[in-house]
Amino acid sequence: MRIALVTPLMEDVPPRGYGGTERAVGSLANSLTWDSHDVTVFATAGSQVDAKLVACRDRPLLTDNRLADPIAEQLTMLRQVREREAEFDIIHFHMDTLQFPLFNSISHKCLTTFHGRLDLIGLPAFYRAYRNFPVVSISDRQREPLPWLNWQATIHHGYALDQYRAIPRTNNGEGYLAFLGRISPEKGILEAIEIALRSGRKLKIAARVNRFDQQYWHEEVLPRIDGDRIEYVGEINDAEKSAFLSGADALLFPISWPEPFGLVMIEAMACGTPVIAFRHGAVPEVLEDGVTGRIVNSADEAAAAVPSCCSLDRARIRSRFETRFSDERMKDDYVRVYRKLARSERSALPRYLTPNVRKVEKGMAAITASLATTRRQTSIEKPADPKRSVEN
Amino acid sequence: MRIALVTPLMEDVPPRGYGGTERAVGSLANSLTWDSHDVTVFATAGSQVDAKLVACRDRPLLTDNRLADPIAEQLTMLRQVREREAEFDIIHFHMDTLQFPLFNSISHKCLTTFHGRLDLIGLPAFYRAYRNFPVVSISDRQREPLPWLNWQATIHHGYALDQYRAIPRTNNGEGYLAFLGRISPEKGILEAIEIALRSGRKLKIAARVNRFDQQYWHEEVLPRIDGDRIEYVGEINDAEKSAFLSGADALLFPISWPEPFGLVMIEAMACGTPVIAFRHGAVPEVLEDGVTGRIVNSADEAAAAVPSCCSLDRARIRSRFETRFSDERMKDDYVRVYRKLARSERSALPRYLTPNVRKVEKGMAAITASLATTRRQTSIEKPADPKRSVEN
Repeated sequence: MRIALVTPLMEDVPPRGYGGTERAVGSLANSLTWDSHDVTVFATAGSQVDAKLVACRDRPLLTDNRLADPIAEQLTMLRQVREREAEFDIIHFHMDTLQFPLFNSISHKCLTTFHGRLDLIGLPAFYRAYRNFPVVSISDRQREPLPWLNWQATIHHGYALDQYRAIPRTNNGEGYLAFLGRISPEKGILEAIEIALRSGRKLKIAARVNRFDQQYWHEEVLPRIDGDRIEYVGEINDAEKSAFLSGADALLFPISWPEPFGLVMIEAMACGTPVIAFRHGAVPEVLEDGVTGRIVNSADEAAAAVPSCCSLDRARIRSRFETRFSDERMKDDYVRVYRKLARSERSALPRYLTPNVRKVEKGMAAITASLATTRRQTSIEKPADPKRSVEN
Repeated sequence: MRIALVTPLMEDVPPRGYGGTERAVGSLANSLTWDSHDVTVFATAGSQVDAKLVACRDRPLLTDNRLADPIAEQLTMLRQVREREAEFDIIHFHMDTLQFPLFNSISHKCLTTFHGRLDLIGLPAFYRAYRNFPVVSISDRQREPLPWLNWQATIHHGYALDQYRAIPRTNNGEGYLAFLGRISPEKGILEAIEIALRSGRKLKIAARVNRFDQQYWHEEVLPRIDGDRIEYVGEINDAEKSAFLSGADALLFPISWPEPFGLVMIEAMACGTPVIAFRHGAVPEVLEDGVTGRIVNSADEAAAAVPSCCSLDRARIRSRFETRFSDERMKDDYVRVYRKLARSERSALPRYLTPNVRKVEKGMAAITASLATTRRQTSIEKPADPKRSVEN
């Protein structure tokens, strides 16, 4: 199929450091392309995907210090997408809001995956007008505030099996607890420090500090980092994650907000590392208590759960990751939704047109598949050149 | 005419405390209504205007601590406006971005006043698609980055003559310098403190500190406030401004950014208070050097200008305010643009329709005028009830 993936331009695809939405989009773009789909990604110029890239912005919005209006820039991108809509069978948005009024008249070939929380105060009034717009949640919990939207599926995120891997450990049982992600109250950094201190374990923190969390970082967190028992190693990138997570006895995920998915949990699982998480948001859907980690309700419970959690079978954790959170599974789930939408779109055509449309589609699919194979071979030869398939 | 004024919902109209856009809209709404136009304001429920109010949100977005998506809420409001577009001859937006794609097909009856700076990095690419959309700048300087937009006029803001007034001063020449507005680097609070210290005058600061400027406030500004020579009096409302500004020997406006207008300058002038301002943005258009204040290029120059500035003729300053920055003048400027747009819209109608349209319009105008008179009388009787004309 001819699929457009539209990102919010906040980060590169995938992000250089922290970032959920664009990391999930990168994983989906690659696995769709490897499955012979014709994938076009609307994203920042620094993005690196095995798909066609339409570069809509020179730098990611979130780390651009120049004065900019993110809404104007996203609208400029959406105008490009709208002008080219005939080139795509499915336009798959990874933004929350702007596409709804602008693509409502062609919503039958549009799909939106929500990546954020949906319990904000004005959302029911806004989405009421878009009950027909097909949408996907990344956890069942996420969609609860808006049950009447046109939900197609809940599709958990997934990663390529070789993206993160378990690195053999020399320090088994003598390692550290890990915190990976972003410094902010809702991500539970203070709770992580408390759990580490109570359980007498070392804590290593690898996390981004966003501009608007600087005060919290300086006033609340930094005074508790002693560089010994509580260590801050900075923000790490994808290449560093396997070592950081494999070396950890367990990952701490003591969140206090309705986390829509929580990618870091499956990153830990990919490295065979168990997760101790607070029971919020998607945690009970992603973790299997007693198998891939422990689900608890407080720092006390978490500290008490550390020994049993650290002794969980790491090979089995990796195996559960491969079964439940592979990019293949995610891609198959999305293709199922794409095909369903394409079918209902086709059934809306006048009957006499349908056979010809089918014939053309079949021919196009063959051409697309052969092109995709060529493209993938090219990408294996030249993996380091991100500009390869940049269109503008 | 039947005029819709559409606000960004960031503040009440007018704002309770600091805030430029909604203060200017309030002034325009009232003066249009008093001139017998049929005015509908799309704004927050707490707004108080002598016009019909469509309450689109219970609280202002900027001071709402609940989780919200401002874009979704503005889009919900714009959907309401779009559904009712036939009720209006002119839809006058006071937002920067979202209305352009959504009202482009009826842009002939739309007008946008820009209230912010227009030199952001992605704006040329965004506005390129909306060259026909009629727009107004609030200073000539503001429009310079986008000279090819469909500019109708530059219209300086204006206030009702009785909104601020000169209160007789007992401390002439022994008073204080004033800083009024918002605590942030670009508004020049540190420069104001420096100017006061160098010129040996007392400084009184009346200003809002926004959430995202808290760190700057605590680290850079607060340590320099001694409560004696440099005094912080908090954020003040409209009722307190006349006393605060009248009591000042001069207002300091040492900005370092391209201020699109600078309402506080004309508020000072309305109280007969001279202004010492840095030469940026709209300052040379609003101030008359040597008449209503002094335009300077540095804190040194500002400190040197304090004595001569404080001896400017305060009655003449007030008189210049009345001539140049009354709400009547602003309203007349806007009505001229509205009529021009309505004329070109009408000339686009088939010729045989025009006489009937004119007849209906004339009848409507008479009814509207009589209604407006009634409404204004009602408002004089019951000035304190903001819910009076709330539609929902």
